[in-house]
Amino acid sequence: MKHLLSAGDLDRDEALLVLDTAEKLRELADRPIKKLPTLRGRTVVNLFFEDSTRTRISFEAAAKRLSADVINFSAKGSSVEKGESLKDTALTLAAMGADAVVVRHPASGAPHRLAASDWISASVLNAGDGTHEHPTQALLDAFTMRRHLGDLEGRRVAIVGDVLHSRVARSNVLLLQTLGADITLVAPPTLLPVGIEQWSCSTSYDLDAVLPKTDVVMMLRVQRERMNAAFFPSAREYSRRYGLDATRMASLPEHALVMHPGPMNRGMEISADVADSTRSVIVEQVTNGVAVRMAALYLLLAGGGPAVDDTVPEQRSRETP
Amino acid sequence: MKHLLSAGDLDRDEALLVLDTAEKLRELADRPIKKLPTLRGRTVVNLFFEDSTRTRISFEAAAKRLSADVINFSAKGSSVEKGESLKDTALTLAAMGADAVVVRHPASGAPHRLAASDWISASVLNAGDGTHEHPTQALLDAFTMRRHLGDLEGRRVAIVGDVLHSRVARSNVLLLQTLGADITLVAPPTLLPVGIEQWSCSTSYDLDAVLPKTDVVMMLRVQRERMNAAFFPSAREYSRRYGLDATRMASLPEHALVMHPGPMNRGMEISADVADSTRSVIVEQVTNGVAVRMAALYLLLAGGGPAVDDTVPEQRSRETP
Amino acid sequence: MKHLLSAGDLDRDEALLVLDTAEKLRELADRPIKKLPTLRGRTVVNLFFEDSTRTRISFEAAAKRLSADVINFSAKGSSVEKGESLKDTALTLAAMGADAVVVRHPASGAPHRLAASDWISASVLNAGDGTHEHPTQALLDAFTMRRHLGDLEGRRVAIVGDVLHSRVARSNVLLLQTLGADITLVAPPTLLPVGIEQWSCSTSYDLDAVLPKTDVVMMLRVQRERMNAAFFPSAREYSRRYGLDATRMASLPEHALVMHPGPMNRGMEISADVADSTRSVIVEQVTNGVAVRMAALYLLLAGGGPAVDDTVPEQRSRETP
Repeated sequence: MKHLLSAGDLDRDEALLVLDTAEKLRELADRPIKKLPTLRGRTVVNLFFEDSTRTRISFEAAAKRLSADVINFSAKGSSVEKGESLKDTALTLAAMGADAVVVRHPASGAPHRLAASDWISASVLNAGDGTHEHPTQALLDAFTMRRHLGDLEGRRVAIVGDVLHSRVARSNVLLLQTLGADITLVAPPTLLPVGIEQWSCSTSYDLDAVLPKTDVVMMLRVQRERMNAAFFPSAREYSRRYGLDATRMASLPEHALVMHPGPMNRGMEISADVADSTRSVIVEQVTNGVAVRMAALYLLLAGGGPAVDDTVPEQRSRETP
Repeated sequence: MKHLLSAGDLDRDEALLVLDTAEKLRELADRPIKKLPTLRGRTVVNLFFEDSTRTRISFEAAAKRLSADVINFSAKGSSVEKGESLKDTALTLAAMGADAVVVRHPASGAPHRLAASDWISASVLNAGDGTHEHPTQALLDAFTMRRHLGDLEGRRVAIVGDVLHSRVARSNVLLLQTLGADITLVAPPTLLPVGIEQWSCSTSYDLDAVLPKTDVVMMLRVQRERMNAAFFPSAREYSRRYGLDATRMASLPEHALVMHPGPMNRGMEISADVADSTRSVIVEQVTNGVAVRMAALYLLLAGGGPAVDDTVPEQRSRETP
Repeated sequence: MKHLLSAGDLDRDEALLVLDTAEKLRELADRPIKKLPTLRGRTVVNLFFEDSTRTRISFEAAAKRLSADVINFSAKGSSVEKGESLKDTALTLAAMGADAVVVRHPASGAPHRLAASDWISASVLNAGDGTHEHPTQALLDAFTMRRHLGDLEGRRVAIVGDVLHSRVARSNVLLLQTLGADITLVAPPTLLPVGIEQWSCSTSYDLDAVLPKTDVVMMLRVQRERMNAAFFPSAREYSRRYGLDATRMASLPEHALVMHPGPMNRGMEISADVADSTRSVIVEQVTNGVAVRMAALYLLLAGGGPAVDDTVPEQRSRETP
């Protein structure tokens, strides 16, 4: 692997390699010293053309735990605002010696444009492009499911809400299908994309009918700024029909997981008690996000060699004062 | 100690432990290599809900000198602005493996809310909450006094200016009383808080009467944005009655110190010549601030074990090219 | 050398020392591990009073490759905006233990004011002050020319465009003259500074006449915000007379280099095909910028001792997982 642009680019073996590598790196999260020297001397640039503090700091933590140097490049106030092209920005970062560029961009396809060009020799990681994809989110979601449910073959996953605008949904569908899961998209017709028939997913407008036969329910964030009367009459009405509250959660099978990519609108697509319930793995998703991003950086930059060794030399060399 | 929320939470022994630890770490400031490996592999998050570059970079320098990884999280442009709650922000940082969260918040009590919750297992350090407290500022002030005056028992400290809105004043009163100092608050009546009688401090409206019998005079920053005609007729009038100029400074005892938490309004609460005089320890306060914050991070994260060793192994391992 | 404020401060030997040091450090750019332990435990502060992402991240990458700790201080949202003086900001950074302060300031002369004061003991590096100077840009330009053309004695360099507002032009003139190059400034009369006769450069209004007898053509960025009808009738007209396109480039000698400090206005002062042509060394300038800034930091902070050793101990100590 050279880049991580789309969850659909990963075949089954590659996806499992990322998840297995993340599994080993995940153990670090439970140690006091969460650091490996693996990427010492490498430079990871967070190139963010739109704000996303959560994703940025997750990648930043992942890179720093592998001892990489991290440079944050926010397009705000930069030459990008003075009209510099994506091309010249890329050429500049490449020339400065970036080994990986983590890109967040409001335009779908921008990371692909970067990677397909000969502008940059660095690995490009898509950290969310428009309404298109967010592959590390899908990887952390699959990782979280696998930790609780084992092999995802035949597992039933319901993805609920604004599928139309959701890069999280799109990346999850691609990755989960590769891993053999059965997906049902639950949304009002106006929030399903045109051409949904080609996604090879089931669709439903009826959340209550889907919940009893699902292993995972993934609630999507309602993007208020993208909602309007054309899509839905009101927030309250949306919540009533597609929100997950305690009553609805009770109809899930005992072992089923509740997921959300965050940040949540508590009281809108998910009620506060459900978000904080024992079935919710929402906080764990964040922890797993760092492990998955470490795995992606490791595999792209350290050559995709043998998986990470269990020994953590950093642990031994720590000197206590 | 698990958190550092209020200067009033520290008993005499704990306060002295922080100051003694800072004393040892302060020596680093005079070395070319100012770094210890103590917190290698730990993550310190600066969670700033309002801008404060001085405080942020002081904590950042402190954490980096202990070899911690630092992640800056400015609430501006983050999901916090999209309506995410303090709770969800905390849960996210905890899940990412933050070992310490340094919080600056415009609302009094926000760091306490973080620490009292079960949202986060990290240590919480209050870096200023509303008009409430700023405990590391009080610690660095006490540290600075002690370096010059020795034991603070019975020392007379005048705190001058806008006590009403000053978290610096509040934290200093709490800590200095624990350390046995006698405090006089000098301010116009409108800039003293309601219930001031319960602070067990002397109060005075007459700066000239107080100066000759004080060991330390601490000038508070005038927060122009909080001043208005209701409090005081004019900046000039304020300066005339409560500003410290060379004439007034001459009435201080020979050994007395002039302090200010910064940033100063030169010409307002303090004249430029006083700020730059040999009695002023204002610049030294900044240096001591880094040492005190290193001590706080060390004690909270490295278990509060034996005080920092004098040997600095990093010094030896430095390779010169 | 204590500071790097002006390209004119460097005598021939000092300039060559920086370039020779950069030459050795430049080799790192071609290694997977681009890091030296030289400045471990030192603190470099990027003090930026105006946005300049490219320059900031170049200095940040340079400092991190020498293992220094980097603290970014943007004046926006800081006490500077609350009215703190340059003096108090400097005193604060000095007190926090900054070893080097990289300053970008909209006012010409601000870095000199910092360095000439006794406010700060740190080394001051001018990263661009108003329309005055940008010495590391001149150093990276000279470095790039030297790599391709060898000794610059007698080499003919044309600097084309808005010389009036260009700190890049000013610093280049000073440095290139020290190194023995012959400079021709090509610009419309309204974009040449008053007193240009004292610069000891040739001047010309006719780009076509200059190109055939030049070894290097350096196109300056058109600062749209500074252009107006008083200077030039229109962007199109500017481009027609002073822009570099393929036809014009064809009149250059075979070995001649095309340079630009970036960010480019493609289609304005330089056409896209020229920017991307084999004669363009624009991208290489960025790479060399990191090496030159490493050299400057090394010489200012590590005592200007013997030049950097070829052995890179970091390479050996890397532990692979």
